[in-house]
Amino acid sequence: MAIGKLVIVGAAGAVGRTLLELLEERSIAFGSITLLGRSSSVGETMSVGGQDCVIEELTPDRFRGTDVVVFCASADVSREFVPIAREAGALVFDVSSAFRMQAEVPLVVPPVNGATLANHQGLIAAPNCSAAILVTALAPLHAACPLERVTVCTYQAASGAGLRAVEELSAQAAAVLAGKKPPTEVLPHQLAFNVFSHESAVDETGMNLEERKVIEETRRILDAPTLPISVTCVRVPVVRAHTEAVHCVFREAVSVERMQTLLADAPGVWIVDDPAASHFPMPIEAANRNEVLVGRLRADPGAPEGRGLALLISGDQLRRGAALNIVEALEMMRH
Amino acid sequence: MAIGKLVIVGAAGAVGRTLLELLEERSIAFGSITLLGRSSSVGETMSVGGQDCVIEELTPDRFRGTDVVVFCASADVSREFVPIAREAGALVFDVSSAFRMQAEVPLVVPPVNGATLANHQGLIAAPNCSAAILVTALAPLHAACPLERVTVCTYQAASGAGLRAVEELSAQAAAVLAGKKPPTEVLPHQLAFNVFSHESAVDETGMNLEERKVIEETRRILDAPTLPISVTCVRVPVVRAHTEAVHCVFREAVSVERMQTLLADAPGVWIVDDPAASHFPMPIEAANRNEVLVGRLRADPGAPEGRGLALLISGDQLRRGAALNIVEALEMMRH
Repeated sequence: MAIGKLVIVGAAGAVGRTLLELLEERSIAFGSITLLGRSSSVGETMSVGGQDCVIEELTPDRFRGTDVVVFCASADVSREFVPIAREAGALVFDVSSAFRMQAEVPLVVPPVNGATLANHQGLIAAPNCSAAILVTALAPLHAACPLERVTVCTYQAASGAGLRAVEELSAQAAAVLAGKKPPTEVLPHQLAFNVFSHESAVDETGMNLEERKVIEETRRILDAPTLPISVTCVRVPVVRAHTEAVHCVFREAVSVERMQTLLADAPGVWIVDDPAASHFPMPIEAANRNEVLVGRLRADPGAPEGRGLALLISGDQLRRGAALNIVEALEMMRH
Repeated sequence: MAIGKLVIVGAAGAVGRTLLELLEERSIAFGSITLLGRSSSVGETMSVGGQDCVIEELTPDRFRGTDVVVFCASADVSREFVPIAREAGALVFDVSSAFRMQAEVPLVVPPVNGATLANHQGLIAAPNCSAAILVTALAPLHAACPLERVTVCTYQAASGAGLRAVEELSAQAAAVLAGKKPPTEVLPHQLAFNVFSHESAVDETGMNLEERKVIEETRRILDAPTLPISVTCVRVPVVRAHTEAVHCVFREAVSVERMQTLLADAPGVWIVDDPAASHFPMPIEAANRNEVLVGRLRADPGAPEGRGLALLISGDQLRRGAALNIVEALEMMRH
């Protein structure tokens, strides 16, 4: 697949910027590129492969003659414009949650389930960031030894709430250090020197939307539609990588050594597990990397009959958690 | 019980300072007070009830004639000096981990198991901070409906690593904001804008010492010696309250409403559970409070047969996590 005309919607956002970085890093070739956005970002100049590129206004007539459109904006924008882009004949990639749970839309973390790309019908979705990072570590384990249940508690970075949240985290930290009241215009609470339950809406069952995405999308990507998953999503004052404490129970007894071997051989995983140096996955080391860091692998004595494994994982929210899945899918489909 | 001569060992530390605050807040009467410490803190002047009090050197001969000695120092100091203080006839309270698992030593969170104080033999221990905060929320639930298993992931503040770690967290944040390399003289890694697996030693099973304390001490305080507990302890860049994401499975089906009522009536618990405002327990609101904040109560769909409950809790690491247990025990024993 050669990409002639490429369009990126939402290029000025955190995911859009990371997508542009990855296209350049991985030398993805295309004939022309158009950056589209709405309101505040229109007119902004961004660098694409050393060339300046001005963000133009997103309107319904911008998709004619395009080969590939990547949506890196909100689910609302995707709901409105993805059908128009498909209608215009473009192959569409969507990072938002708008179409992720539709059966005919592949939901891809390419090293995990890239084979599902073969069945696409013009639209391919990338998963929620926490789910993408989680399945990268769980998939190789589950393939070898089926999971019975999983409990996940997240330590999610500000980047998941967008670039303005990242800027506000810094401004908050500076304010707190200066003894001033921290600004909370983007984030619902002070995040600097604090943690809070993920800000997405809580439904009538008490679950927040982020937790629902982790459960539903993890099940879908692992092809384990009834896997019991318990999850609590929490924001922490970190810039851009998400960390997750994971407690797994498998259907049969497992050995830590075997699990470690499986993970060491798994694509997209980097083992960081040095107890003597107290060196385990940390978001400052996962940031700006493509691999998910995995460590603190240990038997979980709280699980029954030797069937438990606990681990700590950390992955870049904008790369493995978002844009990298699009770029890897493009690479797979090109071959 | 009237306290004649009171001695505090380790008064200059984070727990010691909080103990002095609490003694004053709660008008604990005593005849005289002596503050003891080692090396760097000797000669430091602290305010006790408006009076200046100079920290004197901790030596084995300082306990003669004392009524009550509170140890707020390291386990090594307690192992060396607690036996000497007991020998001298003092009633001894120990915040360290040195004697917590000895069967004849009450391990108390007074609102939970204050009755065990009746059996003391001159030495009373206060639990690990994460365990103390956890049992405050679990005990009222477990008493009404026995737990089958618990999974806990912690979001632990810098204060648990001592006052110097708190100062280093601020210095690190300032350095990062200024684009400089953050100092890591006290903490093993950068904590500002990062999270890391708890720095305590990891044993041959892969568990770290903090996790072992949470498991063993929670079981002991709940009088549930075989309760399966899965735990991951993580440091987050927060100053002084610990947050914990807790997933419980009970032996029988539970209703969220009943659990909420039990917690609302429980001593030492403050419900913070407002989904509409996305307002749940946060460490900046738990800091400097005696109550453990409890919220995000919800059924856990990952647990079997309606037997799961998930919750988020946050408690002051230095109050409920440490010094408050001593002060409440003193109050109970006075009556």
